[in-house]
Amino acid sequence: MSAAAGRTLHLGAFLYGTGHHAAAWRHPASPVERLGDVAWYEELARTAERGLLDAVFFADGQSAGDVSLGPGWFLEPTTTLAAMARATERVGLVCTVSTTFWQPFAAARTLASLDHLSGGRAGWNVVTSMHDAEARNFGMEEMPPSAQRYARAAEFVDAALALWGSWDADALVLDRSGRYADPARVRAVGHRGEHFRVDGPLTVPRSPQGRPVLFQAGSSEQGRDLAARHAEGVYAVAHDLPSARAYRGDVRRRAAAAGRDPDELVVMPGLVAFVGSTEAEARAARAELDALLPVEHSLAQLSLFVRQDCSGWELDAPVPPLPPAEGFEGPRGRYETILRIVDVERPTVRELLGRLAAGGGHCTVVGTPEQVADRLEEWFRGGGADGFNLMPPALPGALEAFVDHVVPELQRRGLFRREYAGTTLREHLAG
Amino acid sequence: MSAAAGRTLHLGAFLYGTGHHAAAWRHPASPVERLGDVAWYEELARTAERGLLDAVFFADGQSAGDVSLGPGWFLEPTTTLAAMARATERVGLVCTVSTTFWQPFAAARTLASLDHLSGGRAGWNVVTSMHDAEARNFGMEEMPPSAQRYARAAEFVDAALALWGSWDADALVLDRSGRYADPARVRAVGHRGEHFRVDGPLTVPRSPQGRPVLFQAGSSEQGRDLAARHAEGVYAVAHDLPSARAYRGDVRRRAAAAGRDPDELVVMPGLVAFVGSTEAEARAARAELDALLPVEHSLAQLSLFVRQDCSGWELDAPVPPLPPAEGFEGPRGRYETILRIVDVERPTVRELLGRLAAGGGHCTVVGTPEQVADRLEEWFRGGGADGFNLMPPALPGALEAFVDHVVPELQRRGLFRREYAGTTLREHLAG
Repeated sequence: MSAAAGRTLHLGAFLYGTGHHAAAWRHPASPVERLGDVAWYEELARTAERGLLDAVFFADGQSAGDVSLGPGWFLEPTTTLAAMARATERVGLVCTVSTTFWQPFAAARTLASLDHLSGGRAGWNVVTSMHDAEARNFGMEEMPPSAQRYARAAEFVDAALALWGSWDADALVLDRSGRYADPARVRAVGHRGEHFRVDGPLTVPRSPQGRPVLFQAGSSEQGRDLAARHAEGVYAVAHDLPSARAYRGDVRRRAAAAGRDPDELVVMPGLVAFVGSTEAEARAARAELDALLPVEHSLAQLSLFVRQDCSGWELDAPVPPLPPAEGFEGPRGRYETILRIVDVERPTVRELLGRLAAGGGHCTVVGTPEQVADRLEEWFRGGGADGFNLMPPALPGALEAFVDHVVPELQRRGLFRREYAGTTLREHLAG
Repeated sequence: MSAAAGRTLHLGAFLYGTGHHAAAWRHPASPVERLGDVAWYEELARTAERGLLDAVFFADGQSAGDVSLGPGWFLEPTTTLAAMARATERVGLVCTVSTTFWQPFAAARTLASLDHLSGGRAGWNVVTSMHDAEARNFGMEEMPPSAQRYARAAEFVDAALALWGSWDADALVLDRSGRYADPARVRAVGHRGEHFRVDGPLTVPRSPQGRPVLFQAGSSEQGRDLAARHAEGVYAVAHDLPSARAYRGDVRRRAAAAGRDPDELVVMPGLVAFVGSTEAEARAARAELDALLPVEHSLAQLSLFVRQDCSGWELDAPVPPLPPAEGFEGPRGRYETILRIVDVERPTVRELLGRLAAGGGHCTVVGTPEQVADRLEEWFRGGGADGFNLMPPALPGALEAFVDHVVPELQRRGLFRREYAGTTLREHLAG
C-alpha cells in the first residue's frame, strides 16, 4: 500500500488570493494590489513551472462573502487559466467548475478549449458547491441537498465525458477537395437523464488530452464515490499521517470496487508549509503572519467553532481545556480537528487562531527545507499521499521558498522529477 | 443624420474560421490546420491591432452542424479572447454570450474578468441564439419562441448591469490595518425577476471599463428595441445604402425614444471586401474562392432558399428569372435579398452561389483599396453606417489586405484614426 515503489511525488500549487493564511494580505509586502492583474497569476504559474510542479489549481466560489475581511474571489478561473496557459509551457492548469451552476455542454466546451490552448494541460476539479449565498446568485433559494447535488454531478460528469468522446482523434480530415471532418467519426451523444438533455456532438474537436484530467475533493461518502469512479487526482484534507492513510486507503478501495486500478488515483493532501533556512526562521515567519490576524474577529469565529465564548481567552496562554467531541452540538468534523491540533501541538490561543487561519485541518509543517521534505517523505512512504496540494500561506514568497528550497531537497532524495518527462498534465501525473 | 460630422469610422474584425467565404478553407493556402491553435487567433488580433481597428469579434454557436462541409465552431470564445487579450495591448475584444444558455451571474463574472485581463477592452455581443440543435444541448426540446427569448434577454441584461454596478470604483480600500474592501461600497443587487434570481454582489471588483461595451445584432423588432435600450455597438445587415440608412435611422429613433442620445450608438453593417491592387485582381480573388464551392451542395442549398429545384441550372449562365417575393412561401427576408442581388448585380449562377457563400446579404465590395474606401465613405457620409464589421472572406489574407491597403486609404481621407487615442474599447468607439 506504500505509494513510493518506483514512483515519485506529485505537487500542485493551490493558488488563492495572497495566500492561504487569512492575514497574509495585511503583510506590508503582500501583493494585494495585484489581485486583479492577470500578470500576477502568470508569474505564479511560471514559478510553479520553474519548480517542475505538476499543476497550478484554482478553487472557485460564486458569492462575494464579507468583503471587508480580506481578498476573496477576484478574476474568473477559466479566463485566467487561459492567460496562464499562454504564459507557460508545461505546468498543468486545474480549474474548478461547479456541476451545480454550470451546464455540461458549456463546461465540456470550455475545458476542451483550455486543453487545446494549453497544449494538453487542462484539469477539471469537479465540485458541487456548498453555500446558499452562491445558490442565490443562480436562481435558487438555497443549495440543493447533498444527495441531489451529487446525483446531478454524476450525471454531469457522464454527459461531459460523452461530449469529449464525441470527436474521434482522427475525425478532422481536412481534405480540401472534400471533407473538413468525417461525419462517421463525430457522433451525437444523445444524453437524456434526470437533470440534462445533451444531444451533442461537442463543437470542439478532440483536444490534446482527449479529455481534461479529472480531480475531485469530496470527503463525504458521495464525494469519495465520485472520486473513486472518475478522479485521476484527489485533493484530500488530512491533519496527520494516520488520517491521511485512512483516507487514501478508502478511496483506493472504492476505486478498486469500481473496477479501476487504484494506482490511477493520485491522492494529494493539502499542505501548508512555512519554510525557513532554520526552524526558528520558519516559526518567525508564521508568527509574523499570526500577529496580523484581526484578533477580535478570529476569536468570534473560534467561539462559533467551539460553541463557547472565547472573547476573554488570553492570547499568549495555552488553549484552555475543551470538552470532548462526544456530545458536541455543532459541526463535528471541524471540532474534532481543533481537539486534535490542541492535543498534538499544544498551541497558545494565538497559535491556534493562526493555525485555523491558514489551512485549518490540513497538514501543516513549519521548518527547514529538510524538515519539510522529511514530512512529505514520511507521508509518501507511509502510504498517506501520492503527492501534495501545496497551500502557500503567503504568496509569492511561500511558493518561491518551496520551489527554490524544498523541491531541490526532494530531488536529492529521488522523490521528485528533475525535468518534465511529458508535455501533458496526464503525463505528469503518470510518472 | 449624417454620421460623418467630426467623427471617424469604427472598424471591427469579425473572425470566423478560415474566413467568411464558405469555401475559403479549401484554398491550398488556407490555414485550416491551425483552427485549434490559439496562436492563430492571437496573430489575427495583432493584425487587427496593427490596423488600429476598434475590436475583434467572435460570434458563437452551441451546436456542431454538418462537420463535413467546412469549419464551424472550434475553440470557446471567452477563453480564446482571454489569450488574445494577453497578445495585444489596444484592440477591443468582443465576445458573444447567449442569454438563452448562460446565467447572468456567470456571464457578468466572465466578462468582467475579460475586462480586467485586457485592461478595459472587453465587449459583450448580446444574443438570444436561434437553433433548435443548440437548445438540445442545453436541456430543451427546441428554442423558446422569440418573444420569450427576448424577454429573458432583457432581464438578463438588467441583472448583469446591476452586478457590474455592485462594486463602486473606490470599493477596494486595501487598508492593511483594517479593511480589504468597504462593505458600504459593495452592494447586493437583489434581482428577482421572472427568469432569474441574483442576489449579488459580483465576486469580481469593478473592472477597468466598469462594464463591458454592449453590442447587439438583432434585426427583429425585439432585437432593435434591445439595441436601442442598451447597445453601444450595433452589428447590422444591409445589402445597400438605402437599407443601411433605413436600419440606422430606425435604431437611432428607437434609442432617442428610449431617452438616449442616438450618437451613443455605433452602427456597424457587415462588410465583405475582396481587395486587389486592381479591380481585376480583386475579381480574380473572388472567382478563385467561388470556384472552390461544392457546387452540388450549394445548388441544393439554393433550391431550399428559392423553393425550386436549381440542380439543373447552368453555372456560368445568368440566374434565371425568379418569381416576385409576394406569394413566396419560404423565409422571405433571405428570398428578398436574393432577388435584390440578382436585380442589382446580374450574377451568373456560380457568382450567386459565391455571393451567398460569403456574407449573404451583407454589403459586398470587390475592388481596389480606393474603390473599397469609396464604398465605406459613401455609406458613412450617407448616414448608413458609423463603421463596419469587417467579414474577411479568407483569413488571414483578406484581413491583412484591408489593414495594409484600405486602412491607409481611409486615413489619407481623414476617415480613420492614425493612432489609438485611448486604451479602452469604449474610448475607441467614442472617437
